[in-house]
Amino acid sequence: MSETEIQRIVLAARPKGEPRLEDFRLETAALPAPGDGDLLCETIYLSLDPYMRGRMIDGPSYAAPVGLGEVIVGGTVGRVVAGSAGGFAPGDLVLGDGGWQTHWLAAPADLRRVDPAVAPLSTYVGVMGMPGLTAYVGLGEIGRPQPGETVVVAAASGAVGSVVGQLARIAGARAVGIAGGADKCAFVREELGFDACIDHRSGTFRQDLAAACPNGIDVYFENVGGPVLRAVLPLMNPFGRMPICGTIAHYNATGLPDGPDRVPQFMRTVLVNRLTVRGFIIYDFADRQPDFDRDMARWLAEGRIRYREDVREGLASAPSAFIELLRGGNFGKMVVRVGEDPTG
Amino acid sequence: MSETEIQRIVLAARPKGEPRLEDFRLETAALPAPGDGDLLCETIYLSLDPYMRGRMIDGPSYAAPVGLGEVIVGGTVGRVVAGSAGGFAPGDLVLGDGGWQTHWLAAPADLRRVDPAVAPLSTYVGVMGMPGLTAYVGLGEIGRPQPGETVVVAAASGAVGSVVGQLARIAGARAVGIAGGADKCAFVREELGFDACIDHRSGTFRQDLAAACPNGIDVYFENVGGPVLRAVLPLMNPFGRMPICGTIAHYNATGLPDGPDRVPQFMRTVLVNRLTVRGFIIYDFADRQPDFDRDMARWLAEGRIRYREDVREGLASAPSAFIELLRGGNFGKMVVRVGEDPTG
Repeated sequence: MSETEIQRIVLAARPKGEPRLEDFRLETAALPAPGDGDLLCETIYLSLDPYMRGRMIDGPSYAAPVGLGEVIVGGTVGRVVAGSAGGFAPGDLVLGDGGWQTHWLAAPADLRRVDPAVAPLSTYVGVMGMPGLTAYVGLGEIGRPQPGETVVVAAASGAVGSVVGQLARIAGARAVGIAGGADKCAFVREELGFDACIDHRSGTFRQDLAAACPNGIDVYFENVGGPVLRAVLPLMNPFGRMPICGTIAHYNATGLPDGPDRVPQFMRTVLVNRLTVRGFIIYDFADRQPDFDRDMARWLAEGRIRYREDVREGLASAPSAFIELLRGGNFGKMVVRVGEDPTG
Repeated sequence: MSETEIQRIVLAARPKGEPRLEDFRLETAALPAPGDGDLLCETIYLSLDPYMRGRMIDGPSYAAPVGLGEVIVGGTVGRVVAGSAGGFAPGDLVLGDGGWQTHWLAAPADLRRVDPAVAPLSTYVGVMGMPGLTAYVGLGEIGRPQPGETVVVAAASGAVGSVVGQLARIAGARAVGIAGGADKCAFVREELGFDACIDHRSGTFRQDLAAACPNGIDVYFENVGGPVLRAVLPLMNPFGRMPICGTIAHYNATGLPDGPDRVPQFMRTVLVNRLTVRGFIIYDFADRQPDFDRDMARWLAEGRIRYREDVREGLASAPSAFIELLRGGNFGKMVVRVGEDPTG
């Protein structure tokens, strides 16, 4: 890559089932020049998040799919390197949607300033960014845990789950995590301070979860689906809440799982226990951003919210890192360091 | 039955699948005498409602099951015939939970006065009673239809569905009913004034429903489940609401339906369209009763809410009528006339 070229990763093929490396293609392209009112940004951190799997499918969703040959979407932290518009100038550190590439062109309206004095740059795609806001909004607006209630979240060492449990504790609730493997579970309990963390790979998962929730479950923050949801459902308490932000267990599925059809069972549980099940997408809660920025910065400074990142080196590592993410192979928020972090 | 005897129908066996006549037993018992603070009531109308099927199962639910040999539960309109307590005296017309019997003993706290000058006695277990309140609360508190939105409800000629659609119209929304057969559909459109009513028995049901909802579905009032839910789901609009008051399609099921397991599809729809799915049970909304009584009486008087009853004669007809109700064989609110209606 010369100084007049950029690297980017495009969607080479629509994945069928689990994505393969061949579904992605690393390309070199000419360094774009910012037009009037545009800014050229250099990527420092690229966020890898499960929702990206949905954008690789050509089907109806809340956002348009990535086209074949197009750069894959993704949140990025970067630095303005050329252009001057909307109050931004070269050297400014920004958060944007640069996607899987080393540089991107952005309109000022699509950038937000980030402050490394408040939190490390990488966290602006993690605990201080979209995953943190997802936890904050889903728990605060839908889950609404009360003191003494029990909150359960899966992928508890991950970007969203780790924040959900810690926010539940801040709200005075009991936080029970679910994670894959003893190391992650120990981290969730000991470093993140959850009251309990259950290994979903264990043969006694269902019994372990029930034992960890002796008073039932009041809030299940749904981000996985599948066997975890099935284990949670019979434990839900009357008037329980279930914010749904994702169902990663099914993202690589090529069809529906075998029967029986458990929808009637699900609906009966929702009815009998008067549950509220509500899907949400973070973009609908932009008005919560200022409160989130303030609260999360304070909690980080106070050490009340902790986080872990799984940082991979170089844009070229993004496809394998993403495949691993969907397998649950990450340990903490998955981030790719694409360029040098000037503050790190 | 002499004047010192009553008749009652008890649960003879727990139904497996569709109830059979042998699961019920008509008995004669001694006329009870009211104790101090009790009232003896004579049943005039017995309500038959789908929820009763759930009480015949010995499993966890929001209410205790009916024991074998016990009188089956049910809402009743009756007349006090003996006793004097809590301001009630013989001759008073009351609503209570007398169950499937010709007489019942009630504490004053379990009775409400009913006024035949406001609405016919039978309606106090129908449009003016629990089914009407179910529609009122589910639509008003959870569905919250806005002018111009589309509300879909199944069992649209039945006790709850018929009110749901008419309340949707009062709220300025488009009301689309689903019912079984051309007669019911014509009644729902022409007598109840729904904008459309689709026959779920038709081979073109899914297409017909989509055609009747050109702007999608904003509120689906769920009272049936099964194929209707599957047809509705792809038509749900972003931010749609789905109050769940029952899933009659599954009440006689002895197990879960064959696969595939459609829960992932359901959850994905809830997420992508940011739906709110909420179960509710009418007993949680007792505080809405005064508003409901006032509003429904006015709407009935103004002719803005219409209703149809399917009245069966004599307590002995209750088992067969109930079996028919679960099959969708009723046309209107199913009521058994157990005793003479002094106002009818």
